[in-house]
Amino acid sequence: MRRWLLPEAIEDILPPEAARIEALRRRILDGFRGHAYELVTPPLLEYVESLLTDGAHDLDLRTFKLVDQISGRTLGIRADITPQVARIDAHLLNQSGVTRLCYCANVLHTRSDSLTATREPLQIGAEVYGHAGIEADIEIIRLLSDTLALANLSAARIDLGHVGIFRALVNRADLDDDQVEELFTALQAKDVPTLAALTESIAEPVRTALRALPECYGGKDVLDRIQALIDDDEVAAAVADLRQLADALAGLPISFDLADLRGYHYHSGVVFAAYCARHPNAIALGGRYDNMGKAFGRARPATGFSMDLREVVRLSGNAVAAKKILAPWSDDATLQSEVARLRAAGEVVAIALPGHDADWRETGCDRQLVKRGTQWIIEALN
Amino acid sequence: MRRWLLPEAIEDILPPEAARIEALRRRILDGFRGHAYELVTPPLLEYVESLLTDGAHDLDLRTFKLVDQISGRTLGIRADITPQVARIDAHLLNQSGVTRLCYCANVLHTRSDSLTATREPLQIGAEVYGHAGIEADIEIIRLLSDTLALANLSAARIDLGHVGIFRALVNRADLDDDQVEELFTALQAKDVPTLAALTESIAEPVRTALRALPECYGGKDVLDRIQALIDDDEVAAAVADLRQLADALAGLPISFDLADLRGYHYHSGVVFAAYCARHPNAIALGGRYDNMGKAFGRARPATGFSMDLREVVRLSGNAVAAKKILAPWSDDATLQSEVARLRAAGEVVAIALPGHDADWRETGCDRQLVKRGTQWIIEALN
Repeated sequence: MRRWLLPEAIEDILPPEAARIEALRRRILDGFRGHAYELVTPPLLEYVESLLTDGAHDLDLRTFKLVDQISGRTLGIRADITPQVARIDAHLLNQSGVTRLCYCANVLHTRSDSLTATREPLQIGAEVYGHAGIEADIEIIRLLSDTLALANLSAARIDLGHVGIFRALVNRADLDDDQVEELFTALQAKDVPTLAALTESIAEPVRTALRALPECYGGKDVLDRIQALIDDDEVAAAVADLRQLADALAGLPISFDLADLRGYHYHSGVVFAAYCARHPNAIALGGRYDNMGKAFGRARPATGFSMDLREVVRLSGNAVAAKKILAPWSDDATLQSEVARLRAAGEVVAIALPGHDADWRETGCDRQLVKRGTQWIIEALN
Repeated sequence: MRRWLLPEAIEDILPPEAARIEALRRRILDGFRGHAYELVTPPLLEYVESLLTDGAHDLDLRTFKLVDQISGRTLGIRADITPQVARIDAHLLNQSGVTRLCYCANVLHTRSDSLTATREPLQIGAEVYGHAGIEADIEIIRLLSDTLALANLSAARIDLGHVGIFRALVNRADLDDDQVEELFTALQAKDVPTLAALTESIAEPVRTALRALPECYGGKDVLDRIQALIDDDEVAAAVADLRQLADALAGLPISFDLADLRGYHYHSGVVFAAYCARHPNAIALGGRYDNMGKAFGRARPATGFSMDLREVVRLSGNAVAAKKILAPWSDDATLQSEVARLRAAGEVVAIALPGHDADWRETGCDRQLVKRGTQWIIEALN
């Protein structure tokens, strides 16, 4: 048996990459902290009902299930951290005002999202609770942009959408839940023939508006287009939100995608997706989810974003590994204090355990501490 | 249904504690890095055969099992990271010389070790591969002591043991595996009556030596005592290792516990446990496990230690949470640049989203940015 084989879409993170992830993790969490987002770490395991609050079949299928030997109940390994943070805001912190939280931790998926995706993303994200106004969405999207900058990335495009538009249209069409689900799936897949068939019996002007959504993609003209197609207060309010957001984020590469309903099952308002150059999938996703806290006893306005830190590191280019200084195995007090001084100054000092003289360059040492007279000095390692 | 309830021995880490864990995580990983230990992050999930290499029933029972929907095979959630790091050293890095690795990540246990223990420890540790000499054990125990110092802790006691002593004795007694297991369990429990019964039919001098192990606890005289009881080359070699180690670690509070076989299933030589004042359980455990790499195609000398970072933080005393500065929601360019400057200087600046004026002290703000003339200055927040 080849015991070193790992399951599909599961991998080790080895030294150079692990150090880069750690460094970026710190920069991003420090950035969140500077913006007053406080770190929380929910558990990997919860009762499955706590993890799956929105009835989303999708998240259910992605969640690994286990039996708790202690309670006999079904546990899930989290496939998403946002519902856990919503639980913490609603039930544990219980603040009445604005609460800003952030996190960085692993999630597991039963299957990978795409051919290249891992089943063990390192989800990092930030959430604002308690503020229903558009200012929270503005703050979160600016923070997303600043966060990508910490990884030396800039968003090539930030697509804004609003689940209120789709929701208003299906409410007017008076569909049952299965029909809504089918429409949602067709829209997500931008499957125009199926969309046409599913909307055949829907009255105008809703039919035309639903059929137009996959083309409502691009600049501000798509907002004009949807408003021209349907006169509806909810649609108008959603469009007004999107306009206000785009104006406030004028420095960023904002565009619109009114058919992007990725988080439809738990999102409730503005949604967004950030894309980087030369990468087909969104690097970060986010939006409003004002109703999630209800499952935990207290619905609160909420908006946030998250991304897979491993993916971000992969896109953020190469870093140079720090070179090490080799020091001999010795009890010489002068040497010991010189080693301590170098380490405190940020150098990496490897002690040469006896008998391995030929191998130290292999471990990344390029210099060595050598005694010259009474002094320990650093020389090149040959 | 009370969806906010968490499973037994599973908990959220909330803001003040999460920040303390993050801060100590960084200090410890920086310490490891300065000593040339490179970070690796193995996956949470592996095929169960890869996680359970030593046939330890104990680790098997502690490991959550899942079915992989992709392969149909049984997966385990790691209950220990050391076997994964041994796999990385043996198979992936494949260096011939000394390899120093470290890690910090969650593990899950099906049941908690004690009434107070979590089922989700945050395991942090360091390992040296490729050096069979006692120097690696010396380095690792010094590193453990330095690591506790980073948490403002000092070991009240570091107990040294050596599984070679027990192994030599049971080899001479010619016992079958079940008998060895029973003896091992009785010794771990310091269950003297059972030990007496189990050793009844064992010939002298092995019988007396085995029965003496639970009392071989304390200063260097216990080494003299076991050597006086049995004349055996392996026992003598183990005792010589322990003497050399204690001499090299003269500045540390070293004692001996020859019946401590905690990691007997995978350990192969010197083992140790560090204790802090006012805490009954060991805060860190470690030792030699020279044979683990064999399951992955390459046996390598190995020694290391690990601990639960959450437990270490809990013992390391209280820290004061950073206070925040409140800034108004405004597009004023002077304000924006002052906020950016304060954040870059390490301050936490929370933006006051409109309409929450009464609530900001609740979120930890004690100062505010106020415009006086053309200047933004910091004043106390009332």
